[in-house]
Amino acid sequence: MLVTKHQNTIEGAVKANHERTFFSHYPEHPKAYGDEAHAKGVQSYQQLLNKPFKQLLQTGETGWVGEEVSPYTQEVLGVTYPVFPVNDLVTQAVAAGKSWGKTPVKERAAVLTETLERVKDYFFDIANATMHTTGQSFMMSFQASGPHANDRALEAIATGYHELQRYPSQLLWEKPMGKFSIKLEKNFKAIPKGVGLVIGCSTFPVWNTLPGIYADLITGNPVIVKPHPKAILPIAIVVSAIQHVLQENGYDPHICQLAADSSEKLITKKLSEHPDVRLIDYTGGSTFGNYVESLPGKTVFTEKAGVNSVILDSVKDIDAVIQNLAFSVSLYSGQMCTAPQNFFIPESGLTTPDGNIPFNDVVTKFKDAIVALVNNPKMGAGTLGAVQNENTLTRAKDALQLGGKVILPGTAVINEEFSHARVWAPTVLEVSSADNNIYEQELFGPIVLIIKTKDTQHSIQLAKQMAQKHGAITCAAYTIHPEIKEMITDEMNSVFTPVSFNLTGFIWVNQHAAFSDFHVTGGNPAGNASFTNQEFIVKRFVWVGNRELAE
Amino acid sequence: MLVTKHQNTIEGAVKANHERTFFSHYPEHPKAYGDEAHAKGVQSYQQLLNKPFKQLLQTGETGWVGEEVSPYTQEVLGVTYPVFPVNDLVTQAVAAGKSWGKTPVKERAAVLTETLERVKDYFFDIANATMHTTGQSFMMSFQASGPHANDRALEAIATGYHELQRYPSQLLWEKPMGKFSIKLEKNFKAIPKGVGLVIGCSTFPVWNTLPGIYADLITGNPVIVKPHPKAILPIAIVVSAIQHVLQENGYDPHICQLAADSSEKLITKKLSEHPDVRLIDYTGGSTFGNYVESLPGKTVFTEKAGVNSVILDSVKDIDAVIQNLAFSVSLYSGQMCTAPQNFFIPESGLTTPDGNIPFNDVVTKFKDAIVALVNNPKMGAGTLGAVQNENTLTRAKDALQLGGKVILPGTAVINEEFSHARVWAPTVLEVSSADNNIYEQELFGPIVLIIKTKDTQHSIQLAKQMAQKHGAITCAAYTIHPEIKEMITDEMNSVFTPVSFNLTGFIWVNQHAAFSDFHVTGGNPAGNASFTNQEFIVKRFVWVGNRELAE
Repeated sequence: MLVTKHQNTIEGAVKANHERTFFSHYPEHPKAYGDEAHAKGVQSYQQLLNKPFKQLLQTGETGWVGEEVSPYTQEVLGVTYPVFPVNDLVTQAVAAGKSWGKTPVKERAAVLTETLERVKDYFFDIANATMHTTGQSFMMSFQASGPHANDRALEAIATGYHELQRYPSQLLWEKPMGKFSIKLEKNFKAIPKGVGLVIGCSTFPVWNTLPGIYADLITGNPVIVKPHPKAILPIAIVVSAIQHVLQENGYDPHICQLAADSSEKLITKKLSEHPDVRLIDYTGGSTFGNYVESLPGKTVFTEKAGVNSVILDSVKDIDAVIQNLAFSVSLYSGQMCTAPQNFFIPESGLTTPDGNIPFNDVVTKFKDAIVALVNNPKMGAGTLGAVQNENTLTRAKDALQLGGKVILPGTAVINEEFSHARVWAPTVLEVSSADNNIYEQELFGPIVLIIKTKDTQHSIQLAKQMAQKHGAITCAAYTIHPEIKEMITDEMNSVFTPVSFNLTGFIWVNQHAAFSDFHVTGGNPAGNASFTNQEFIVKRFVWVGNRELAE
Repeated sequence: MLVTKHQNTIEGAVKANHERTFFSHYPEHPKAYGDEAHAKGVQSYQQLLNKPFKQLLQTGETGWVGEEVSPYTQEVLGVTYPVFPVNDLVTQAVAAGKSWGKTPVKERAAVLTETLERVKDYFFDIANATMHTTGQSFMMSFQASGPHANDRALEAIATGYHELQRYPSQLLWEKPMGKFSIKLEKNFKAIPKGVGLVIGCSTFPVWNTLPGIYADLITGNPVIVKPHPKAILPIAIVVSAIQHVLQENGYDPHICQLAADSSEKLITKKLSEHPDVRLIDYTGGSTFGNYVESLPGKTVFTEKAGVNSVILDSVKDIDAVIQNLAFSVSLYSGQMCTAPQNFFIPESGLTTPDGNIPFNDVVTKFKDAIVALVNNPKMGAGTLGAVQNENTLTRAKDALQLGGKVILPGTAVINEEFSHARVWAPTVLEVSSADNNIYEQELFGPIVLIIKTKDTQHSIQLAKQMAQKHGAITCAAYTIHPEIKEMITDEMNSVFTPVSFNLTGFIWVNQHAAFSDFHVTGGNPAGNASFTNQEFIVKRFVWVGNRELAE
């Protein structure tokens, strides 16, 4: 989500990234908020540290928990959050939901949109909190947890607003019967399903949580937000802002509650299995995701793990392609669910209008581009961000033992601003198409696999198989041949995987824009839901039609 | 679905029903098809009997089956249907689905609408086939399996047409970046989920099957139709008509296949569990419905059993109310999924503007109205139709042993046209609110329970509890008090049950009109789907968005 000036070289990008001036009128850029906003945001964030978070409008806590550690400083944040018994949370939600469910959708849309305006006032607090819980760079933290998350929230509100008004709320039905007619007054109500639960993850605690929250709220369901215990602060600030706006407008703040817990005493299963919890949104690993999906009587929306592929067939400008891909795999150290992992390249190399590029040359160019990017003092640390947790770092280190040829061993990278930051350059391995035991798994984090295939058809076959068996959220493909493009589209789309073709310059496969790109299709094992199509909304309520003989 | 002239007495209704003349210009009435249509339809139907059904465009059968018996004549129909191995059916469906899935929705809508025109040519054949498999009266058979089923099919086509065009198929996305902009060409495709299976029931073999068939087809999925072995002919005629229109328009007729089987060798589970079958529509009992819903990796739409309630609180005109209810419980001998079963009446009786009607008087009036209806030689047999199978008849007979006070013992009723017809008048029992072991179950067929409650609040509480625990498709309520009306609406809607208030005259709670009433809400145990809301359509395909850097 880092967007830089149009240059086809990393040096140019560095310059643009450094300047950043021309973004100042785009709300997705921090500069748009004035020159002092950043410094004030850091101050404001620091004032939250080492104390209880008391901004929520929830009472009756039975204790306080908090275990967040900054991937940049390796220090504890020291913020604690109130803990509530599961039954209290659900009881409060049910009570608050009664009138919320009857509030007309237009009124709900109005107050929910106002909550987004309020959240905007905290963009810099949220950005710093995101940075120091997830390890995202400041820029990504700002954009992903700020304007881009709000965009997705607004998208859910807008889609709900549309779908809930799909049928008339009242009408007179008349059936001609010859000399007379039968007349019925009919009304149609979108009845909310019940209490919603949104389970967050540690890498995108706001961006992945807001769509579920706002989809539940616009459809009249009260919502309980259960963040990852290592990334509570960013979403706590958002929930607090929502609660205050609700209360100011005369609504019960318990329509949206925070349910913090600790790693030692997780409440996620207890919440998920509560009979009054009817809707569950989940982002995270597949094991827990499959458990949530299997719960009887729940409507569940998941984003789980996937294995994203890049299919390289032919290119116009190899350097532009390689720059783009090197950035894609480095951005936030491969911790985006949209990051590519498996690169399928034919053993004969890539064709171009100017002749063939041998397989080994492509691999070398890719390696060199990553090395140049991560070692660039102005660019490397800022692009990589920090590795969110120690397990991911261990996985990256252990990747050297996976087998295959080590093209690039992952190494520590210095962040000049934060000397203790957990920064790690991508590990790149070359494997053969027979090494499916290596590449048939999500290797979350800074790990990239280059898979040598017989030809592009073989690449497509393997990428399709991966998506079908293990799920995929993205697929990048490079080809200059229309018939190959059609084949890739058909095959990958048939396993419900979207394809981004020939991206170069300042747009990457990792990026999905609200109001324009669906995020996850919901059709393969990477998840069963999509931000934000009709299904993401309409499964949260039930149409009920009543009728009465008209007098 | 029998519609008669506006009279508040059964005698008036008989007259209207007998005359039927003023309906002649409404396509839901047989008279609209000319004076000879009926006789020709009987002839045409009789020509189908006692021979193999060879109108399907499917080949490679491994045998022929057929076991239908007319509930009117108790004779076997003698029609046999080709049997195909499950794998062949699915392989054919997958192959046919490839091009069908890529056919633009506008073309699909056009040819599907043409299939409905063709089906219309067979309305009388289908009506006779329905009558002699389900036991419905001729009029109900004609309407339910003919124009009303086609209406529901058209509704599915129209809803699909709308939902599939919800997002643009192509667009140019441009993101301003200051001195330049990023441009992406994007396309959005509604990718069909895979092979659809529609499992039919023995009482409404066409009406309950067409929505699933057409919802699958409009969204690009090939469909396999698995009818109940005792009610194949009506839907076989429809599938054959669909196949011929598909072929005439250059499409593969295997887009819609019939999968007949026999009671001894059912193929429903094998079909349901086939990995390529992704969509299942099911109508029938809850045990099998729950099994289908539990299958992993399938998108399932069910209509199962439910217990429908009538809440009687207060009335303006007790006789009009009782006439309406007597007809509702008698129509097709309670074999409609929308038929009321449990009548909740306060022990203090009903209030009216003219004073109180004691409980026992209400019960007596209800009994008398049923007796008058079923014993009316012009009306009784035609309203009751015939009981589809022996199990239902046994259940009605055994109901006398359920406990409670027998208000009306079910008795055989003579059908003058068909002396062997299995016709049975409703059994009516009075039970106390403590007899929940009796009324907490679906007693499918001509069985009615009157439950004496403390007061209307108690009635509402019990009706709500029934809907929540056992499901409900309809609820009829009678009250002249606005605050009670609101309470009933709120409570029943909260368990996703629609309420029909104060129906009298020629409209009954059993009736749901296409394009106006949802059939089943999908929110309680009576089923997880609804004819035809957005969800019934959008769960059958997946939105996939592709993009490419614009040159």
